[in-house]
Amino acid sequence: MRNVTVENITDVFSAYFGDDADPRSKQVLSSLAKHLHAFVKDVELTHDEWRKGLKALEWAGKLTCPERNEFVLLSDVMGLSSLVDMVNSKPDVTSSSVLGPFHVSNAPPLEIGGDMRGDFAGEVVLVEGTVRDANGAPIPGASVDIWQTAPNGLYSSQDPAQETYSFHGLMTTDDRGRYAFTTVRPVSYVVPDDGPAGDILKAAGRHPWRPSHIHFIVEAEGYHSLVTEVFAADDPYLDQDTVFGVRDDLVMHYVKQPAGSFPEEFELSGQVKEEYSRVDFDFKLALI
Amino acid sequence: MRNVTVENITDVFSAYFGDDADPRSKQVLSSLAKHLHAFVKDVELTHDEWRKGLKALEWAGKLTCPERNEFVLLSDVMGLSSLVDMVNSKPDVTSSSVLGPFHVSNAPPLEIGGDMRGDFAGEVVLVEGTVRDANGAPIPGASVDIWQTAPNGLYSSQDPAQETYSFHGLMTTDDRGRYAFTTVRPVSYVVPDDGPAGDILKAAGRHPWRPSHIHFIVEAEGYHSLVTEVFAADDPYLDQDTVFGVRDDLVMHYVKQPAGSFPEEFELSGQVKEEYSRVDFDFKLALI
Repeated sequence: MRNVTVENITDVFSAYFGDDADPRSKQVLSSLAKHLHAFVKDVELTHDEWRKGLKALEWAGKLTCPERNEFVLLSDVMGLSSLVDMVNSKPDVTSSSVLGPFHVSNAPPLEIGGDMRGDFAGEVVLVEGTVRDANGAPIPGASVDIWQTAPNGLYSSQDPAQETYSFHGLMTTDDRGRYAFTTVRPVSYVVPDDGPAGDILKAAGRHPWRPSHIHFIVEAEGYHSLVTEVFAADDPYLDQDTVFGVRDDLVMHYVKQPAGSFPEEFELSGQVKEEYSRVDFDFKLALI
Repeated sequence: MRNVTVENITDVFSAYFGDDADPRSKQVLSSLAKHLHAFVKDVELTHDEWRKGLKALEWAGKLTCPERNEFVLLSDVMGLSSLVDMVNSKPDVTSSSVLGPFHVSNAPPLEIGGDMRGDFAGEVVLVEGTVRDANGAPIPGASVDIWQTAPNGLYSSQDPAQETYSFHGLMTTDDRGRYAFTTVRPVSYVVPDDGPAGDILKAAGRHPWRPSHIHFIVEAEGYHSLVTEVFAADDPYLDQDTVFGVRDDLVMHYVKQPAGSFPEEFELSGQVKEEYSRVDFDFKLALI
């Protein structure tokens, strides 16, 4: 096309595809171009704004390292990560929600009833539940990968004071599909806001807070993997998660239990005399 | 918003803006989110594709350095750079076209009639024209910043064998608004295709070629700066510039001139006895 114009550029883009282009690549790239072109036209993006956007991406590149992925964070604060989760969610099972950048692979095995709190202070929380299929039948032998912030609001990968697998555990459900562990409450925290994602939040007049949550990856043979996170019903940021992760079915309750009622069969049994909280949360997985 | 869904996430994004957000920032970010969300929904982007996109941006970050900006190149091959040029073009004057990543600032002054060819071999080309306003009146004292590839298809910043300002010159129009210089023909060339922009071209089954062109930045007090490039009418890639830069009014002709006809008043006068080519190209600038 000799004379590229505002009106024809999106069609010209599509006309440049080779005959042997993979159909899915063509679909994704054509749609990306169509929507980015529409954005530039809608706002009549200036050269200064275009340069600012490119500088933000350059800066994200400089900040990105094994401990921090600023591109993931940009995707998070723009709502893209959550949207990708949602368009890929399966019906009639637990919603997926953002993986985030803080998962550490190969966490050490955690026995059912085991403790993730370690030496950290804070009220004991007992989390338990069952991994089920869409009809409610328990799934024994499912893998439950768990991670959360320490009470200081930092994940181990952000915090030199924590060991790599601090507040990370990998559990296998028992023959009734059950998982159970003790921990301390994670806290609301701010996403890193000293990079371009933070600049977007500042330009939007948005805060960088996420409501407190516990992350899970639940996997079982024959089922779709579930990457999700579970939020506290009483968190002040529940209705304004800056990365758009909250879904109705992912809200759980910390229920106070009286002193002296801590159950048997837990690693901490016999040690917890005082009040503690209990969370019950079941996961439902979709058949492949 | 507690329950973020595929249907409401774009509205939730807009609802999160603070009351004191700058109106233009709000407009640009809302529109960007709206169009990126529509893209994810339209193609039902998978997690693998999302990760692939983020990896491409990470890779672009690693490749970007003072000599190469892969984000600019991604913008170029997606048609965004050209579209930004076009939505900001002024009516009734010369079209703008992509700046590209190869401009070097502070080029040395080049006298009217001066030579940019230096020691490079190749047929002499005489380029001349007048800088005018929208009504055709000449603009004396306009600055004309010129750059192009060497005959090997490389810009000085890509080519260790060239000096920094090889094939770069900064001219000031005379009292009739005229500029003129000699050079050799630039050639069609490939954009760097060993990074994520190249991966897009490969996935699209597109070639990485640009038709040969000479770049200009034309500036004069009281007028909008013009960033543009001028293309050879006989270039085989004129109808499929991989960065969408060609506009009808930016096409020029190399017109053969007989041996012995090289004019006076040029740096090369007296030295060019053989055939040469001549290009006439006028620029029109828009009043601020």
